[in-house]
Amino acid sequence: MGIESVSEVRSHGGVQGVYKHASSATGTDMTFAVFVPEGNRPMPVLWYLSGLTCTHANVTEKGEYRAACAEAGIIFVAPDTSPRGEAVPDDLDGAWDFGLGAGFYVDATQEPYARHYRMWSYVTEELPALVAANFPADRARQGITGHSMGGHGALTVALRHPGRFKSVSAFAPIVAPGQVPWGEKALTGYLGGDRAAWREHDAVALIEDGKRLPELLVDVGTADPFLDKELRPELLEAACAAAGIPLTLNRREGYDHSYYFISTFMADHVRWHGERLTR
Amino acid sequence: MGIESVSEVRSHGGVQGVYKHASSATGTDMTFAVFVPEGNRPMPVLWYLSGLTCTHANVTEKGEYRAACAEAGIIFVAPDTSPRGEAVPDDLDGAWDFGLGAGFYVDATQEPYARHYRMWSYVTEELPALVAANFPADRARQGITGHSMGGHGALTVALRHPGRFKSVSAFAPIVAPGQVPWGEKALTGYLGGDRAAWREHDAVALIEDGKRLPELLVDVGTADPFLDKELRPELLEAACAAAGIPLTLNRREGYDHSYYFISTFMADHVRWHGERLTR
Repeated sequence: MGIESVSEVRSHGGVQGVYKHASSATGTDMTFAVFVPEGNRPMPVLWYLSGLTCTHANVTEKGEYRAACAEAGIIFVAPDTSPRGEAVPDDLDGAWDFGLGAGFYVDATQEPYARHYRMWSYVTEELPALVAANFPADRARQGITGHSMGGHGALTVALRHPGRFKSVSAFAPIVAPGQVPWGEKALTGYLGGDRAAWREHDAVALIEDGKRLPELLVDVGTADPFLDKELRPELLEAACAAAGIPLTLNRREGYDHSYYFISTFMADHVRWHGERLTR
Repeated sequence: MGIESVSEVRSHGGVQGVYKHASSATGTDMTFAVFVPEGNRPMPVLWYLSGLTCTHANVTEKGEYRAACAEAGIIFVAPDTSPRGEAVPDDLDGAWDFGLGAGFYVDATQEPYARHYRMWSYVTEELPALVAANFPADRARQGITGHSMGGHGALTVALRHPGRFKSVSAFAPIVAPGQVPWGEKALTGYLGGDRAAWREHDAVALIEDGKRLPELLVDVGTADPFLDKELRPELLEAACAAAGIPLTLNRREGYDHSYYFISTFMADHVRWHGERLTR
């Protein structure tokens, strides 16, 4: 399980690294970023799953998480959002909301995607093992967050791995992909037309079907152009209320869907995770 | 003196804007970024001049200045580093250290650059007037900083405008362009071979020739690959010592020349300026 260092740069007292490895899950090379704060000890890990069109680089450059992670002593891991490479099929029309940069954190069952689009296995099994083997990560203290499609990923991964994550949050997540255009397109393309199979990759459906989280922090911007059509946080609010999951849903006045929004509240989320990961 | 909004996005409680205007100084359209914290009052201004190859976008995306500027109530202005457009001649060999993205904050006197490469007039006259006219900027309370070539710009602009800036700092600045390869190439290309004319654009020479600053904060990384050949902070240290200019020169162990270095110490610099701009 070797990884290759693409770059390691000192920042905020720690090391911001970018690494590459041959992934058995996706059958491609995969690139991911890890920030390790200063210090020689096992540290808690915060996973950050990125949104549509992103690679590891977007949050690494624009996320403004390093100062807060350095202060809290938290390792920050940012995977890519899809397999990449010449062998990897993209959306047939080249759209940005499916295919490359849009793996939706599922293991595809449909052709031509089933061979490489296995982001569920990648972020839940292969990459956690790699991170544990190569960084001073304390697997007993993990949190997860993400943005948009990555918020969907964070919620579904956490809901389906009870006990693995001590803290779960999201920025502008897609909470019910089975009920919104981005999700319907992606789940149809990767998983096929049987909507029953989609419920395993739909946070609201998982909660309806009995999955639970101890609590949940979500921030959305009121000026997010995708709020009403794709994100629909009110569906999560209703599901959490019905299930008795304590949800803190912050509607941030005037904020949009960009990293200018995410970076504004990133330190709050990191500290919130830190309180739960270091106690 | 109209400016056109390219984008305005809410971030850290304020507004991160990008603006465009037809510049009389450069004879081209110019783009710049301004962050204005929340609040309805005149606020101090911190100018940030960027380094080689950059536009306004690098620091805007990677600089991690907004949280600190929001807290201190400081407007942050980031100009471009050169004129751009089809009419603008680049380096004849297409090098990245001259021409586009490398205006060096001088008014060129040499052909074919004299027509458009007038970044000195742009950042010292035209853009300050535009900022004053279009933003709640308190011109009596201004600070200036910059990175690498932009650190050179910040130092020379401040040294030649006594009293304009209450605070001056730099990240990894080129302190003596007349004595290093980047500077010799740029000053020859823009100003010609007469080294006497270069002294007006060389911080160490300006100090030797009697220009003064009340004090100065500089951070450099010890792992900066340009430290010994292009930056040479020891020349600034010697000049400041001889002139009695109080210089705080922080040599940061293991940091390089990138925004991973700048962003680590950006909040320190913003707070340092804030102490001097708000007292």
